[in-house]
Amino acid sequence: MRQDKLLVPTLREAPGDAEANSHKLLLRGGYIRQLAAGVYTYLPLGWRVLRKVSNIVREEMDRTGAQELLMPAMQPAELWQESGRYHVYGPELIRLKDRNDREFALGPTHEEVITTLVRNEVTSYRKLPMNLYQIQTKYRDERRPRFGLLRGREFMMKDAYSFDVNWEGLDKVYKEMYNAYSRIFTRVGLDFRAVEANAGSIGGEGENHEFMALADIGEDTIVSCTACDYAANLEKAEAGFTEVPRRDEGAPAFERIHTPGSASIAQLSEALGVPANQLVKTMIYVADGKIAAVLIRGDHEVNELKLQEVLGFEDIRPAESEEVAAAGFVPGFASPVGLDVTVIADREVMNVASWIVGANEKDYHLKHVIPGRDVKITKVADVRNATEGDVCPRCGKPLQFHRGIEVGHVFKLGTKYSQALGATFLDQEGKSQTMIMGCYGIGISRILSAITEQRSDGGSMVWPVSIAPFHVHLIQIAAKDEAQRQLAEQLYEQLQAAGIEVLYDDRDERAGVKFKDADLMGMPIRVTVGKQAGEGLVEFKNRAEDRNEVYTAEQVMAEVLRFVKP
Amino acid sequence: MRQDKLLVPTLREAPGDAEANSHKLLLRGGYIRQLAAGVYTYLPLGWRVLRKVSNIVREEMDRTGAQELLMPAMQPAELWQESGRYHVYGPELIRLKDRNDREFALGPTHEEVITTLVRNEVTSYRKLPMNLYQIQTKYRDERRPRFGLLRGREFMMKDAYSFDVNWEGLDKVYKEMYNAYSRIFTRVGLDFRAVEANAGSIGGEGENHEFMALADIGEDTIVSCTACDYAANLEKAEAGFTEVPRRDEGAPAFERIHTPGSASIAQLSEALGVPANQLVKTMIYVADGKIAAVLIRGDHEVNELKLQEVLGFEDIRPAESEEVAAAGFVPGFASPVGLDVTVIADREVMNVASWIVGANEKDYHLKHVIPGRDVKITKVADVRNATEGDVCPRCGKPLQFHRGIEVGHVFKLGTKYSQALGATFLDQEGKSQTMIMGCYGIGISRILSAITEQRSDGGSMVWPVSIAPFHVHLIQIAAKDEAQRQLAEQLYEQLQAAGIEVLYDDRDERAGVKFKDADLMGMPIRVTVGKQAGEGLVEFKNRAEDRNEVYTAEQVMAEVLRFVKP
Repeated sequence: MRQDKLLVPTLREAPGDAEANSHKLLLRGGYIRQLAAGVYTYLPLGWRVLRKVSNIVREEMDRTGAQELLMPAMQPAELWQESGRYHVYGPELIRLKDRNDREFALGPTHEEVITTLVRNEVTSYRKLPMNLYQIQTKYRDERRPRFGLLRGREFMMKDAYSFDVNWEGLDKVYKEMYNAYSRIFTRVGLDFRAVEANAGSIGGEGENHEFMALADIGEDTIVSCTACDYAANLEKAEAGFTEVPRRDEGAPAFERIHTPGSASIAQLSEALGVPANQLVKTMIYVADGKIAAVLIRGDHEVNELKLQEVLGFEDIRPAESEEVAAAGFVPGFASPVGLDVTVIADREVMNVASWIVGANEKDYHLKHVIPGRDVKITKVADVRNATEGDVCPRCGKPLQFHRGIEVGHVFKLGTKYSQALGATFLDQEGKSQTMIMGCYGIGISRILSAITEQRSDGGSMVWPVSIAPFHVHLIQIAAKDEAQRQLAEQLYEQLQAAGIEVLYDDRDERAGVKFKDADLMGMPIRVTVGKQAGEGLVEFKNRAEDRNEVYTAEQVMAEVLRFVKP
Repeated sequence: MRQDKLLVPTLREAPGDAEANSHKLLLRGGYIRQLAAGVYTYLPLGWRVLRKVSNIVREEMDRTGAQELLMPAMQPAELWQESGRYHVYGPELIRLKDRNDREFALGPTHEEVITTLVRNEVTSYRKLPMNLYQIQTKYRDERRPRFGLLRGREFMMKDAYSFDVNWEGLDKVYKEMYNAYSRIFTRVGLDFRAVEANAGSIGGEGENHEFMALADIGEDTIVSCTACDYAANLEKAEAGFTEVPRRDEGAPAFERIHTPGSASIAQLSEALGVPANQLVKTMIYVADGKIAAVLIRGDHEVNELKLQEVLGFEDIRPAESEEVAAAGFVPGFASPVGLDVTVIADREVMNVASWIVGANEKDYHLKHVIPGRDVKITKVADVRNATEGDVCPRCGKPLQFHRGIEVGHVFKLGTKYSQALGATFLDQEGKSQTMIMGCYGIGISRILSAITEQRSDGGSMVWPVSIAPFHVHLIQIAAKDEAQRQLAEQLYEQLQAAGIEVLYDDRDERAGVKFKDADLMGMPIRVTVGKQAGEGLVEFKNRAEDRNEVYTAEQVMAEVLRFVKP
């Protein structure tokens, strides 16, 4: 394509509100433009990348035997009421009314629609297993849209839904999807990790994995082992744990100590000269409307998703300070002693020999507190986040932490939706059974940002060949030089005839402008037709290796072909 | 693809609310399913057709040098306020509010978004002309969604927008688009006509054409000449007209006649024994809130779009009967005599020698009424619909009428949007000029219905090869017959290896069920592996010609290839 009339409005500077490097580069390189917060237009270059990513996803999904279809974005609210998610989903679900005042949601995901479809159309075990997918625009009214395509309100996803007669079938398709995802993210050129994850609002009963693109801007923390292949989202990650037998016999009775102004662990630790990992925090939560207390080591943080799982509640959140006070606790000095609410103790806190806890009295703590004797504990469980000092739960070697962008997620849903929406089938004996479901998402548009995060540096970007908008950026230095024009046109024709996608910068601009634009736009190969055109020589640059060679036209053809089709 | 697990739920009967034949067939053939009124899921077969149609559209658009991009469906309401369409569009525009109470519209069309984009990004004549397009889901809250994909609320469109430095540029791209559309509709296999049309709510200053698929179910009437190539939408169509010089001198004064019960033209015609084409109807309209009268021959109908153009008003509609009465008219006997409102006379009514009109008194008319003398006429113009008895405005030969489905529309917009939204550029002299725009739409999903209307008959459908979900339907009669299985599997492999798309009916079903499903599903070639499989013989059927041949496996390969790749 000739660059002369192409709509690729590069920018010298990114708009001030673009924080992430990928966001800046996609704007500056002329890939996207914002229409509203979290709502973007994909300009011709961005759209080319998006289509290439979609095609790779489609090829790998089709290869597994999944069937592509397209469901509507407008979903009747009744479906969401039937599944019970209409209220759970909250303000992130975009709602609207039609001219007859019927309520609709703009689909952020399609479990309800697909489950209803399969419920209505598939009745026999003979049509199962079935795996259905679509590549579609999704809507989510994010509280804080940001980082360009990373957290948008209108975005593109691939979502797949599998239906099986039993869990073994689900295990099989889950593994196929896991493998397909690994191939997809490899082919699009991402540096990624598959990690164990928490199901979040999608729910479900079985295991699930996230595919994380490694990037500092990522909103997720990935915990992985430095030795074995254990990897999990921090939300889900365990740390290695060794129980220390308690020796509480003969321990003295607990004692009230004066701790003026020590309402935080840091203050208390300093005042008493006791390290935070020897102190016990009492955290107050509201779980499905009821107060619950969590005991955790001073240097640890509560993992609310783990806590939610342990408590078995739908809705859990830290109590507001008024709620803490209303429940009879003194904020900053809350005590677990003498409580008759649910008390969850993190298992690490049980390894602390003698506890120092709040006295439930301003400026006072208790020491020599013994769990069991002084504190009634409902349950001991792992309810904390792993930390960088922890060891692997599998092999005991040190854990490491990275930041990641979630680009894919595979879930074993089980019967959560098939039960709620009545998706059953008749088995070989003619008995009605509930379908076993899985669901599998890929953030198609988000991949653009994730790749850009990984492959850009300041004002320079290099796309992987597999998804680059064009393979070659052909630059003619002097628009009016006849020898250059002839050689460039010849290469443009020859490369295209060989199936190479070429963007030909035929503009009447200064060389500096052309090179700066080419750096921003990021085609993986640059071929420059300049002063040596008269001798039939051009410059070839493999941008990823930052390698420059002078070639003849024949050599450059061979080199490009070798690079693009290895 | 093997049919065994494919989600193609054929139906013996269409749901009762499906009226159009295409709607019934797309449901019965397992192509689509309704999620809500006017909102459909494209099942795997339907989605395959949709993608093939999209690809043909894309190829032909790219061939003209148009650039593909993708704009959001969520459009800030401010853009629509800026263009002035936010209120004009009415309840068909789906509106929503985000969590911060900002108003959005779900785009039924993208003039506002693209014009703003180009305004912001293109500033010099050097980037023009530019033609940008997208293939995208659109939203329109139809008052009465019906006929399946023909009038939906969520549907797929290709929309293109061109930007030029002058009208000559627009003329050129308009012609390119017109030609591309002709190629597209030919390639997808539609029987269509390009007709002159009215711009409707898109507006614009120049010519525009609709591409109409001929079909009885069509909501539009196409008027075309039996001799020359004149063709127009009834909304726009002219009829040949010859002015008859009036000879009013010496005419008698008008006279009141008693016409009891003759409140309609039919009654009046019968009572007086005067044919309707010698009577004059006085129709009362409300134009931008003011009363206007239209005089038209008794056998003609007012064309409101023509009337609107003549009056130059935005909003025009027939007066309600209360409004008629409130304005001082006696319903059924309204008179143009002595009126001081705007009076538009259709030019044909001026050829009626001596007028019989209402007396504005119940059961009375006036005869010998002379225009000019007795009736003050504001303007004489063509404000009627053509009728089947009319002649061509170009060549005078008879006109014919057909019904058509609008599948495409090309518009010369001129500066309507570029002016409202400030899309200007600097010309070669550095002077600011307003861009000249065109817009070009294709109803991608609607094409599925249009094709089905044209190519189906009761329970039988035949897709054109170019957009059929599969080229060949390979049917193995007896699922458990080993000879049949072997030959069918061999053909399945060989055909696919040759690039043929094969749907292989390997189901354990009765032959009757398989054939009935195949008729409904509509693949253009059917290859049946049955009793003669042992001798290596199969049946080949070109379904459009309803031709059956018995071939060897080699012959069938050759025949299929000849058919699919002519």
